[in-house]
Amino acid sequence: MAQVVADRRDVDFVLHEQLDVARLSRHDQFAEFTGKTIDLIVSEARNLALKELLPCQREADEEGCTFDNGQVHVPRAFHRAYDLFRQGEWIAMCDDPTWGGQGMPRTVSMAADNYFNGANFPFMLHNILIHGAGKLVERFGTNQQKHLYLKNMYTGKWGGSMLLTEPEAGSDVGALTTTAVKNDDGTYSISGSKIFISSGDTDLVENIIHPVLARIEGAPAGTAGISLFLVPKYRVNDDGTLGAFNDIVCAGIEHKMGIHGSPTCSMTLGGKGGCIGTLLGAENKGMRAMFVMMNEARLHVGMQGLACAGASYLNALNYARERVQGAALTAAKGSPGVPIIRHPDIRRNLLSMKTFSEGMRSLLFYVGFLEDMITVSTDDTDKARLQGLIDVLIPVAKGYVTDRAFEICSQGLQVFGGYGYTKEYPQEQLLRDCRITLIYEGTNGIQAMDLLARKLSLNHGRAFMDLVTEVEQTIAHAQKDANLASLAGIVQTTLAHLKETAGKLAGDLGTENILTAFAHAHPFLDVFGDTLMGWMLLWRAVTARERLAGSPKKKDAVFYQGQITGARFFIRTILPVAQAKMAVIQTGDTSALDMAEAGFGS
Amino acid sequence: MAQVVADRRDVDFVLHEQLDVARLSRHDQFAEFTGKTIDLIVSEARNLALKELLPCQREADEEGCTFDNGQVHVPRAFHRAYDLFRQGEWIAMCDDPTWGGQGMPRTVSMAADNYFNGANFPFMLHNILIHGAGKLVERFGTNQQKHLYLKNMYTGKWGGSMLLTEPEAGSDVGALTTTAVKNDDGTYSISGSKIFISSGDTDLVENIIHPVLARIEGAPAGTAGISLFLVPKYRVNDDGTLGAFNDIVCAGIEHKMGIHGSPTCSMTLGGKGGCIGTLLGAENKGMRAMFVMMNEARLHVGMQGLACAGASYLNALNYARERVQGAALTAAKGSPGVPIIRHPDIRRNLLSMKTFSEGMRSLLFYVGFLEDMITVSTDDTDKARLQGLIDVLIPVAKGYVTDRAFEICSQGLQVFGGYGYTKEYPQEQLLRDCRITLIYEGTNGIQAMDLLARKLSLNHGRAFMDLVTEVEQTIAHAQKDANLASLAGIVQTTLAHLKETAGKLAGDLGTENILTAFAHAHPFLDVFGDTLMGWMLLWRAVTARERLAGSPKKKDAVFYQGQITGARFFIRTILPVAQAKMAVIQTGDTSALDMAEAGFGS
Repeated sequence: MAQVVADRRDVDFVLHEQLDVARLSRHDQFAEFTGKTIDLIVSEARNLALKELLPCQREADEEGCTFDNGQVHVPRAFHRAYDLFRQGEWIAMCDDPTWGGQGMPRTVSMAADNYFNGANFPFMLHNILIHGAGKLVERFGTNQQKHLYLKNMYTGKWGGSMLLTEPEAGSDVGALTTTAVKNDDGTYSISGSKIFISSGDTDLVENIIHPVLARIEGAPAGTAGISLFLVPKYRVNDDGTLGAFNDIVCAGIEHKMGIHGSPTCSMTLGGKGGCIGTLLGAENKGMRAMFVMMNEARLHVGMQGLACAGASYLNALNYARERVQGAALTAAKGSPGVPIIRHPDIRRNLLSMKTFSEGMRSLLFYVGFLEDMITVSTDDTDKARLQGLIDVLIPVAKGYVTDRAFEICSQGLQVFGGYGYTKEYPQEQLLRDCRITLIYEGTNGIQAMDLLARKLSLNHGRAFMDLVTEVEQTIAHAQKDANLASLAGIVQTTLAHLKETAGKLAGDLGTENILTAFAHAHPFLDVFGDTLMGWMLLWRAVTARERLAGSPKKKDAVFYQGQITGARFFIRTILPVAQAKMAVIQTGDTSALDMAEAGFGS
Repeated sequence: MAQVVADRRDVDFVLHEQLDVARLSRHDQFAEFTGKTIDLIVSEARNLALKELLPCQREADEEGCTFDNGQVHVPRAFHRAYDLFRQGEWIAMCDDPTWGGQGMPRTVSMAADNYFNGANFPFMLHNILIHGAGKLVERFGTNQQKHLYLKNMYTGKWGGSMLLTEPEAGSDVGALTTTAVKNDDGTYSISGSKIFISSGDTDLVENIIHPVLARIEGAPAGTAGISLFLVPKYRVNDDGTLGAFNDIVCAGIEHKMGIHGSPTCSMTLGGKGGCIGTLLGAENKGMRAMFVMMNEARLHVGMQGLACAGASYLNALNYARERVQGAALTAAKGSPGVPIIRHPDIRRNLLSMKTFSEGMRSLLFYVGFLEDMITVSTDDTDKARLQGLIDVLIPVAKGYVTDRAFEICSQGLQVFGGYGYTKEYPQEQLLRDCRITLIYEGTNGIQAMDLLARKLSLNHGRAFMDLVTEVEQTIAHAQKDANLASLAGIVQTTLAHLKETAGKLAGDLGTENILTAFAHAHPFLDVFGDTLMGWMLLWRAVTARERLAGSPKKKDAVFYQGQITGARFFIRTILPVAQAKMAVIQTGDTSALDMAEAGFGS
């Protein structure tokens, strides 16, 4: 079976034909990222993914991480992969070149991340954590903090993590109890316990820089009293050399369903009173810093989900083309078997996987592109509009995308029949790995509440309406093409229902119906996402139609025609169902609230 | 956290209040199975499940099966569990007492199986295979075969398996190549290779009796030339003692996503020319024998799915009642946290899990009850009608139920947040174990095709219409209750749409639209199942309303009220969406067929 991770033709289609990302190079910030450079970057990423990361995917899953004598060991194969990854300068793709970053457009980094995560998502968790921790230092650090830590992080010499969750403070971050006591020299003594810390410890790097959320003695309760600290595993001397161990101890690692190559650590800080941290940003503004990072982190989780789903789809596609089983349904009795892609049920499955994963790819890359547009924009109004679009889209990019990604992984396993359930093929690992994306960085239930309660009303509803305007532009475009007008009409009707549904729910928030609205938050996220998929696929179809008009090569023509057929499938079979779901949401059924707690069962 | 597997109150509700299973005891065949006896049986099963099977669920998952020197070893804890299971005489609950069975009504055995499989489904696979192999001997065996094998199987002294699948013959059974050559003494020499054989080898028992599908030399191609053979691991002498090893070798076991406690074996038969089998049933009638067993096997797979889903639901419910996280949404800022069951999104999740799993329990028990009604019926027309109902329902009981069961297991994991992803709680194992039920005993795609192509037209459509009549009776019942009339109306409308959709698809089968119909087979299975869930939940609500009218105890009243609220939730939020899906099916979208094979991607 061919080794596959992501369809290069489709990645290129989104980058160059749907978004025209090379136009960013007209701006100083991205001048070097011409179309040609972008292609080189994607090719390099794809090579590394296929040749180095994918081959150790299963091995690392089986070996897992080990913990002994207080030290975490990651799978052996990750050491070589990590060296190559560092050498390729992939850790800080979009970050400030002053500190070792590559200054790449976000959109381009997403293409690379699509390959990396599709090939070996557990391995990639190490790298994204380093980038994330580094980004906090870049954004909120003092000059001294940057000089001490940042270059070593962005170049992968040192690792990073993020210490947020505690046993009693998961979705409710404000309940955390880790404390920080100010010392005379301005540093803080940290003590507390954290759980579910990805890369909390690792033997890949010589030092780890941990951003830690904690409460300064006497600070207000809840999120308003949370501060952010930088806590290195080994203290760093002023000359950059490593000092003493900083009393931040990994107490154990979780045994998990998947992402076995990523150690999920329980951390004890200051157990011996010797854990020193420095304040990162302002006192009691830790949550604000988290929020600044949250969009990027959640977008990335969406990418993890898509990467698993896209790989699962391509594996299933290859298998369906090769696996011969059963004669064609309309063939005469005794006819020879055909590849299962010829069977209608398999085709429907594959087409469903294709359209969802491609729509999701477009959506995620589009959010990345909006970020890049902010970077190059010089107009504050425009920047605000773009930021509003991103803010509204993030819960969909995380919550909706990972919900669907898990379903796609399950469909992708199913195409393999019994083989899909074995470890002989990557499908079952992709499904297990993917499952975490629905949970971390805010569960998908939290995403749904975020969309409903914060994002719909953002800028007095302006952000949502700006998004509607974007969708309407694609619809208007499609309506000019007789071949797409009827599909455009379905998207338009769905969008109208969505506006109505959003209006109803947003209105209910300020009334006695507030809990009913929240009971429909997740179904609303579903239909919101379905509508956006319809938009993205229509946009793809419009683009494909334009290209077809230009007499493309035969192979390209098949690809473009596939885009149109895919859009038709999704818009005609998924969107009408989404409309029915919206009608249900609008009825405001209260059963879930009416149910007596004892009535759920004994 | 309380140890839970299935809600006893709900199991009793289905047995006694919805189906009134004790009425079977009016018939000679089941005279001893009075209400009191049934309760004792369920209590015994529940005890064994909670005290012996559940405690080794995780341990067995982690230990798994091992294979060395040609011998499979199952998890150590299974030996004790198996001894107790045998002693309790649970292996052949419904089988002929002459041969060691218990002669129990199927419906009652399903209640026991609900507990057993919810507690430890991988363990139960050993037992169901013994029962299944034994049943083939009971149904098709000669007196000699029965005397030699059957009692030792039904009492669990010997094991059983089922050798069907081959590397190139999975869904396409007719492609199998294992051969049988007749010997002078009337036995057959078998040679070939089989894969995916559950309990193909085990160290739980001293001998294993393998039913094997093979092709007699010179037999027709395809399914018409397949015969069934009995092949013991060790030959059995006429006096019942064990003879020589029979050259049927386990060549290895699969490494799988789940059901780690169940060895999935590759088997080589006659590698040294010494594998002897005896014909079971008539030559070339092996597939007919398989079909006779298929309904029971598929119903049982549905039960495995439900058992995982029901356990996942109850675990989630308990966790949601205990886990405190976040203040109530409408509480003043700084209010203390509440159990997460108070949060609307969690409640909706739980109610969705509850209604699906309860509706599925009713459906499966109902199918079992239909079997029992056949057993006690003396009217051939009635027997045929009941058999028709079963035949139509089986693809739903297997395909729809396991599709939904997997989703419920995923929801049940999600309620636990990050904890659900760890092996500290059973949720992730239930999800992994459950995943196989969508694949084996005919993939769910095969189930969908079976429903569409065979079952809708069964007895010229009479079977399907008989099922419609059953649903209509419940609707008529509910319509007399002002409190349920509007819900009954929604079920009625949905049923009308279903008939229309079924008519359209069945009509298309004989036309050039046949492939289009098959492309919608799985979506049709979905809406078929949704409609039946609506029926079962309405039936539950009708029953609950009747009980409420009789001034029940407070605790019971809460349970009954929960039934009504659950039915309302499902019928008002799921069925309207099912109607929209039916409308989509009826449009006959052909995108999946139109798609060029190359258009799926490169």
